[in-house]
Amino acid sequence: MLRTSFQGVARLVRHKALYRSPCLLPRVHLASAFGSSTESLVARFCPEKTDLKDYALPNASWCSDMLSLYQKFLEKTKSGGWIKLPSFKSNRDHIQGLKLPFGLETASDKQDWRLFTRSIQLEGQGYEYVIFFHPSEKKSVCLFQPGPYLEGAPGFAHGGSLAALMDETYSKTAYLAGEGLFTLSLNIKFKNLIPVGSLAVLDIQVEKIEDQKLYMSCIAQSRDKQTVYAKSSGVFLQLQLEEEQSQEQ
Amino acid sequence: MLRTSFQGVARLVRHKALYRSPCLLPRVHLASAFGSSTESLVARFCPEKTDLKDYALPNASWCSDMLSLYQKFLEKTKSGGWIKLPSFKSNRDHIQGLKLPFGLETASDKQDWRLFTRSIQLEGQGYEYVIFFHPSEKKSVCLFQPGPYLEGAPGFAHGGSLAALMDETYSKTAYLAGEGLFTLSLNIKFKNLIPVGSLAVLDIQVEKIEDQKLYMSCIAQSRDKQTVYAKSSGVFLQLQLEEEQSQEQ
Repeated sequence: MLRTSFQGVARLVRHKALYRSPCLLPRVHLASAFGSSTESLVARFCPEKTDLKDYALPNASWCSDMLSLYQKFLEKTKSGGWIKLPSFKSNRDHIQGLKLPFGLETASDKQDWRLFTRSIQLEGQGYEYVIFFHPSEKKSVCLFQPGPYLEGAPGFAHGGSLAALMDETYSKTAYLAGEGLFTLSLNIKFKNLIPVGSLAVLDIQVEKIEDQKLYMSCIAQSRDKQTVYAKSSGVFLQLQLEEEQSQEQ
Repeated sequence: MLRTSFQGVARLVRHKALYRSPCLLPRVHLASAFGSSTESLVARFCPEKTDLKDYALPNASWCSDMLSLYQKFLEKTKSGGWIKLPSFKSNRDHIQGLKLPFGLETASDKQDWRLFTRSIQLEGQGYEYVIFFHPSEKKSVCLFQPGPYLEGAPGFAHGGSLAALMDETYSKTAYLAGEGLFTLSLNIKFKNLIPVGSLAVLDIQVEKIEDQKLYMSCIAQSRDKQTVYAKSSGVFLQLQLEEEQSQEQ
């Protein structure tokens, strides 16, 4: 049974930082505990060579709006500071070689673990999405096309499917922009339903990083910005992932 | 392209109610627009005989906590005022014979539409959940066991999977308790991660119904209430579903 709250884990991490460097002031310890640069996090997150399948690539189900906007952002990765994030089947693949903070041990059995937003693998039926991240501006764009397995009201995406993808896009952005690891809160205002099969564009921005927390905002709208689907804010807790020790040690 | 916001649809419904009964005061029109009793909504929602598969029944993947609490609530359906809600593959099945308000026409093609929280049909891999509803107290309990396809952090349910199930349980409760149809807002505070394969109990309560809105709250915790996973609030917009006209008319 897991009884360690996020805030409790954060306190433990602070304590650990203090223990390691007893001569520094607490505020400095905090900074020293989160020292990885966005550059090194991105390099680890986006391996140049991998055998893992990237689910954030175009397929025959993508509508023309999704495909053309994808191509537009892909062009921007060449010179405009944008990075296309790969999307593997499980977060276990994304954080290979790293471990969660103490109290959150990872089950290591051979189950078929899947990242929730990649759990439906039939092209076009579930989540189709791709995230582009802009490191220096600490923002992301997520292109999202809901399939018929994401239905809520007949013909429209379930509000929960948008909430989950907002959480997922926040989460990846928070991690790369500042080692944000756990969602502390998520507040969503829904404005319009997203028709199944159409494109929604999620614009995510890190507003500030303060007291070990990342404060983020998101607007989800149609490509022409004429229809706002939802607006949200999210707060993520910063926690540093540690290198796993080899079995020999 | 859908450009009719929820609040816009609500205004149209109010206008329609006024048009139908021009001698009544606006406040009374509103009440008359939402006249279906919870009893009749529940009767329609829980058909005694149906060929549709109910996904909210025990299967071999349920952990012992989930199974024993299910049996306990099932006992309470005999005398304690609780109702076990069936859970079909699509909301199209739940609202058979009814149509959404104008501006939200339903696509009627033969795609394999699935309710988002019932999209993964492999037992134990995705969502396992069952909702019990208490009409007179306007509250619900949802027993939730996340499978390995709902993963976020390794070994734990994705925050978005809990958010989506909260939205879904709110939604069903809001509809039956007061014709709440669309999520206007969802605010969640996450406290602890839910281990995959374990039971989380969601307690949902309608706090008040005011100005065409249902205000609801939820706490998700372990069965022994020692671990709070998340707390949330949700606001739903009341809109009456209309009977579909037959093709001959």
